[in-house]
Amino acid sequence: MAKFIVGVMGGGENATEKHCRWAYRLGELIAREGWVLLNGGRPAGVMEASARGARENGGLTIGILPGRVHSSASQYIDIAIATGMGDGRNYINVLSSHVIVALPGRAGTISEIALALKNHKRVILLGFDTGNLFSHYQQSGLLYRAATPEEVINIIKGKQGDGSPAFF
Amino acid sequence: MAKFIVGVMGGGENATEKHCRWAYRLGELIAREGWVLLNGGRPAGVMEASARGARENGGLTIGILPGRVHSSASQYIDIAIATGMGDGRNYINVLSSHVIVALPGRAGTISEIALALKNHKRVILLGFDTGNLFSHYQQSGLLYRAATPEEVINIIKGKQGDGSPAFF
Amino acid sequence: MAKFIVGVMGGGENATEKHCRWAYRLGELIAREGWVLLNGGRPAGVMEASARGARENGGLTIGILPGRVHSSASQYIDIAIATGMGDGRNYINVLSSHVIVALPGRAGTISEIALALKNHKRVILLGFDTGNLFSHYQQSGLLYRAATPEEVINIIKGKQGDGSPAFF
Amino acid sequence: MAKFIVGVMGGGENATEKHCRWAYRLGELIAREGWVLLNGGRPAGVMEASARGARENGGLTIGILPGRVHSSASQYIDIAIATGMGDGRNYINVLSSHVIVALPGRAGTISEIALALKNHKRVILLGFDTGNLFSHYQQSGLLYRAATPEEVINIIKGKQGDGSPAFF
Repeated sequence: MAKFIVGVMGGGENATEKHCRWAYRLGELIAREGWVLLNGGRPAGVMEASARGARENGGLTIGILPGRVHSSASQYIDIAIATGMGDGRNYINVLSSHVIVALPGRAGTISEIALALKNHKRVILLGFDTGNLFSHYQQSGLLYRAATPEEVINIIKGKQGDGSPAFF
Repeated sequence: MAKFIVGVMGGGENATEKHCRWAYRLGELIAREGWVLLNGGRPAGVMEASARGARENGGLTIGILPGRVHSSASQYIDIAIATGMGDGRNYINVLSSHVIVALPGRAGTISEIALALKNHKRVILLGFDTGNLFSHYQQSGLLYRAATPEEVINIIKGKQGDGSPAFF
Repeated sequence: MAKFIVGVMGGGENATEKHCRWAYRLGELIAREGWVLLNGGRPAGVMEASARGARENGGLTIGILPGRVHSSASQYIDIAIATGMGDGRNYINVLSSHVIVALPGRAGTISEIALALKNHKRVILLGFDTGNLFSHYQQSGLLYRAATPEEVINIIKGKQGDGSPAFF
Repeated sequence: MAKFIVGVMGGGENATEKHCRWAYRLGELIAREGWVLLNGGRPAGVMEASARGARENGGLTIGILPGRVHSSASQYIDIAIATGMGDGRNYINVLSSHVIVALPGRAGTISEIALALKNHKRVILLGFDTGNLFSHYQQSGLLYRAATPEEVINIIKGKQGDGSPAFF
């Protein structure tokens, strides 16, 4: 059976230091659970930091690249998937993840949250205030909010006694 | 030179009657300007209504379909582009439009607004309150707000004395 | 109901003068039937020539562009669809056409023939000898061969007494 | 640095027993080199056999799925990338592989060979006679022919004394 994949989205070049620390820690925790980390693959912001956190803690990292060549991937990406589709690859990011975690970001990150919810994927917002825009999906149980990377992991695990991801 | 294309996005099955009336009127006005209307092509909500408004007033309508077959298009679509890419086609919707108009909708519409802004396309919100989520883009002059279909047309025309689209 | 679309594929920068003449004539004939011409949209080879043939004879032309911007389209394209997907757009070319005509070309053209046949689209080879590679599809009635643009039109019309496209 | 990925393409439901044996053996050899195997991910033919060969010999397997859900992947796939793009994913298959090996197949496999060559990827044909169709690319050094899985590995390794892949 295919491995459990957590997609981590968030700001690129505009990400703050604080959000990059969160992203690193989240990557670390994902790796320690034995899960696979997936992101947009570029060497910037939340992508780079989350991949580094997973890689430096023994995890496997997948980068879904907008471009056509492997060489554009972050050095912390193990498996570089080159789509050649630009931001069209955001759709593949969300379909390929069992659950999406979104840190603060701009339009790229918002498009991933929206595409995930549209396709019935669960999304966990980590410190990202999206206002009321997605309230329909919060009511239907697809949208979660977390304040720390640790809380994200707990939400994914849910209340299953055996520690396996709860809703997948 | 290729024709000027206005992309009209908004709710599908969940669109209200009021928003469908706006969409019809917007399609009508786009047709009367001699512009091409582009939307997601399905026979529902804002898509169907805007295509109908354009078609019944002599306009040309393009539908970018999520599916693989032409037969899934609204009857008011002249040119059915079958992408076979599901919601991945939202990226093509925005790249192919010279300007995007977004009526109220859920995650699909929000993904189109976000993908448009990410790719430096101008977006006009028609009666759609997206809160502060896209305020960065409002400041940089990519995001506009309109209260009526007529106002949308005026924004597109801008202040050009000759009536040609202002910023394209 | 959506218009009938004929996709015309073939060499770009490497197309010969003879093949460009065929492409121009084919575009002309498609326009005279009142059909829509679709191609890859770039200002080169069979794409440019077929669009010019259609446009100069009153036809409507659609270009499915590999790039993200309208400005990369041939001047003979009326509707520029910007996919931002590179050669990934070849899949959209074939799905969006009711029938594909392939003039001689290299790997790009061959990929379009193959993707069309895989998706049960009829393909007419115009002076393009593909050897035995697609013989399976010739036997199943999806692959046709023509020696002139006029013959292509006749194959599309089939034996319908009313002159409407035969197999769509 | 990202891992070295070998894409293995070939027939699905129509693959012969002999070709599936080759595919299994090829997957085994790829795994033993420490390379990653990538294919179309479905539980059929060359895809299933090559993934099984790699998995049962300690390798890592990536499946680029045409559909939207992980559950359509072969049980021998470790990382399921869900594209939701149908055969449009063939473009991603070839861009994401450092080298493509093509066993005999029909239009799907031919489209992958063509898309790979168009994008300057090296392709090794394993027992697949494609006639003269791709002779242009054989002359330019992109197209190779092998008679056994072992020969495929030798071609990839080339003449490098250190056993690392030769041309990547």
